[in-house]
Amino acid sequence: MIHINENFQKLEAGYLFAEIERRVKEYAALHPAEKIIKLGIGDVTLPLPPATIKALHEGAEEMARAETFKGYGPYEGYEFLREAIAASDYRRFGLDISPDDIFVSDGAKGDCAYFHEIFSQDIKVAIPDPVYPVYADSNVMAGRSGRAENGRYKGLIYLDSLEENDFIPNLPKEEADLIYLCFPNNPTGAAATIEQLKPFVDYAHEHKSLIFYDAAYSSFIQDGRYVRSIYQVPGAKEVAVESRSFSKSAGFTGLRCAYLVVPEECCAFDKDGVSHQLKKLWFRRQSTKFNGVSYPVQKAAAAALSPEGLKECEALVKYYLENAGKIRAFFEKMGFSCTGGINSPYIWINSGRDSWEFFDFLLNKAQVVTTPGAGFGRCGAGFIRISAFNSHEAVDEALTRLKKLF
Amino acid sequence: MIHINENFQKLEAGYLFAEIERRVKEYAALHPAEKIIKLGIGDVTLPLPPATIKALHEGAEEMARAETFKGYGPYEGYEFLREAIAASDYRRFGLDISPDDIFVSDGAKGDCAYFHEIFSQDIKVAIPDPVYPVYADSNVMAGRSGRAENGRYKGLIYLDSLEENDFIPNLPKEEADLIYLCFPNNPTGAAATIEQLKPFVDYAHEHKSLIFYDAAYSSFIQDGRYVRSIYQVPGAKEVAVESRSFSKSAGFTGLRCAYLVVPEECCAFDKDGVSHQLKKLWFRRQSTKFNGVSYPVQKAAAAALSPEGLKECEALVKYYLENAGKIRAFFEKMGFSCTGGINSPYIWINSGRDSWEFFDFLLNKAQVVTTPGAGFGRCGAGFIRISAFNSHEAVDEALTRLKKLF
Repeated sequence: MIHINENFQKLEAGYLFAEIERRVKEYAALHPAEKIIKLGIGDVTLPLPPATIKALHEGAEEMARAETFKGYGPYEGYEFLREAIAASDYRRFGLDISPDDIFVSDGAKGDCAYFHEIFSQDIKVAIPDPVYPVYADSNVMAGRSGRAENGRYKGLIYLDSLEENDFIPNLPKEEADLIYLCFPNNPTGAAATIEQLKPFVDYAHEHKSLIFYDAAYSSFIQDGRYVRSIYQVPGAKEVAVESRSFSKSAGFTGLRCAYLVVPEECCAFDKDGVSHQLKKLWFRRQSTKFNGVSYPVQKAAAAALSPEGLKECEALVKYYLENAGKIRAFFEKMGFSCTGGINSPYIWINSGRDSWEFFDFLLNKAQVVTTPGAGFGRCGAGFIRISAFNSHEAVDEALTRLKKLF
Repeated sequence: MIHINENFQKLEAGYLFAEIERRVKEYAALHPAEKIIKLGIGDVTLPLPPATIKALHEGAEEMARAETFKGYGPYEGYEFLREAIAASDYRRFGLDISPDDIFVSDGAKGDCAYFHEIFSQDIKVAIPDPVYPVYADSNVMAGRSGRAENGRYKGLIYLDSLEENDFIPNLPKEEADLIYLCFPNNPTGAAATIEQLKPFVDYAHEHKSLIFYDAAYSSFIQDGRYVRSIYQVPGAKEVAVESRSFSKSAGFTGLRCAYLVVPEECCAFDKDGVSHQLKKLWFRRQSTKFNGVSYPVQKAAAAALSPEGLKECEALVKYYLENAGKIRAFFEKMGFSCTGGINSPYIWINSGRDSWEFFDFLLNKAQVVTTPGAGFGRCGAGFIRISAFNSHEAVDEALTRLKKLF
């Protein structure tokens, strides 16, 4: 008799965004005439930058001719793309990351959800709270936790991100082996400085731990005091992998391309304490389970990193940051305490009440979809996340409607 | 201290195709003037069908305009594609598969490698031998085996596919919970009839087991006596999921699109014997770890299933089958015993000696890359797999070179 993975039974309700989608669909079915404005899921709305469209067409043309046709690509991504990433996302900012340490993937969600596979079943995992649900859910599915109690899985270590610590969590009190961090943060919108991240890097050195640094929103950093990359922190290369995505910087949520940096310095240990390069383990994992990213998409990603593409991507980011600034200013004016929205597309708002209740209130009264903070963890209770990913017109309309509520 | 997944240490050498690539690169570096002909990895060489190229361009154009731009798509794939799959790959052949039971993915390799995640750690897994390495490797990584001894992982059940059983394995002798089957087979090229598969479906009903049916090469079936789909076998819908791919039917190895059929009838059981729909578990898995396939690629996949696209895809398949027929005829003439190459792009040749040795012999003496059978399992020792995925000219040239060796 075939048995299910009982760890799935531990998972709380549906995946957050699936639950939101369900509530929105239900509302829309009951009120077909009303126009819903989505400021919930962090999904971009502007069309792809022209440089990437051009590359997509070129990629399609190459696939149309035998002489330029591309079959299976390298498991780790084409060299032209890994070179472009090393140059534009790292060397341009004075960081020395080798193209050989870069693994191109079809999404940061997968990189976040899969990376734990190369580690032992009994490692201790620390995640911030609130947090993007994928870090916790993927480790729960893998059996690294007990059931949830009060919104927290037993066996996981939670790092509270609160107003009182500027949403930069304190170090784990228990011994943590794998620590997920995300800045600019999803959902709080908080960015971090070198000084704020240094203690995590030092902790990882001291405890031979590893940091999974999710920098999916790094292109939103406008203020040089905050880091774009964990590798700006001295000593990070030995203890941190970094996940980045083209989803938010270049609008690739529907096109699918991301990458993971696994520096050759990063190691984990076997039972005898012998160190093993993570890069080799990750390559083994990727070559066994993955066959690379669609070729035209890799071409488009490289184009997003060309001088022309970078300019167009910066314009996209600026556009969304204008929205973010307006949303934050509005809620602050209404008397709410807010974080993010400056170096981040997310505004994290202390609603002063239950967050699903506030979510339903905004959906029912203003037809505005947000994301309830409770969906991101216990410390998110009472907050909502508003996303700046929409048109200026939609955001203006949403704020006009919201004005009537407060 | 962070520990590695010790199961990775159990894996034999490198992933087969990575090892072949290494040997070919080494040879090429030493003999830069010689032209190597690749008949190894099953990678297509003909350009994409015109209908799919047109759809890629249209998809790119939609991504270029705000009104038609697509962000995150449905986790399970766009309805237009799932509808096209249900119509063209199933209803056209008299099989009733609901679009709601179809999950679009970026590759059959991933579907094969990930599907086990929804099952308990202690299920017993049966795999054919020889076999595509991913079924075994992904289960080894997940801790469902001991170390390998004599080319077989302890704890996995092996189903011998031999000349004497026409490469259709016998039923598991031990109790098996998850049974991987692949027809037309990779690597043996053998196809299966309803009568040959019926015992597996009956076994699964009797033992409450599940069949993972890999039909990546189904479009190569020319002879109606052999099944294209496990669902042609009565009773299969309750006990089998089916993996299919656009890689070989439409040349998508570099474009990346596949799908998994998980009929709502399929179940697995919890500790109390309560049944759970696999479809729901798989949706939970997909929505947590995956964000859908690139939109223009889904458009192209749907175009491959349009009347025009189907005709173009059939022409591709015919082209490769011409190669396959020639290769098989040649080796039979040279006195080798062969399987496949008729309803399959693969020809499985009994080389009469060690398969890596034969691989090296063909590479060194004729600069022809094949795949050593031993890489697919103990029963593959002594065989090589030759792939028909190349141009007519390259195959003719390869056969001219090979003629001098025998």
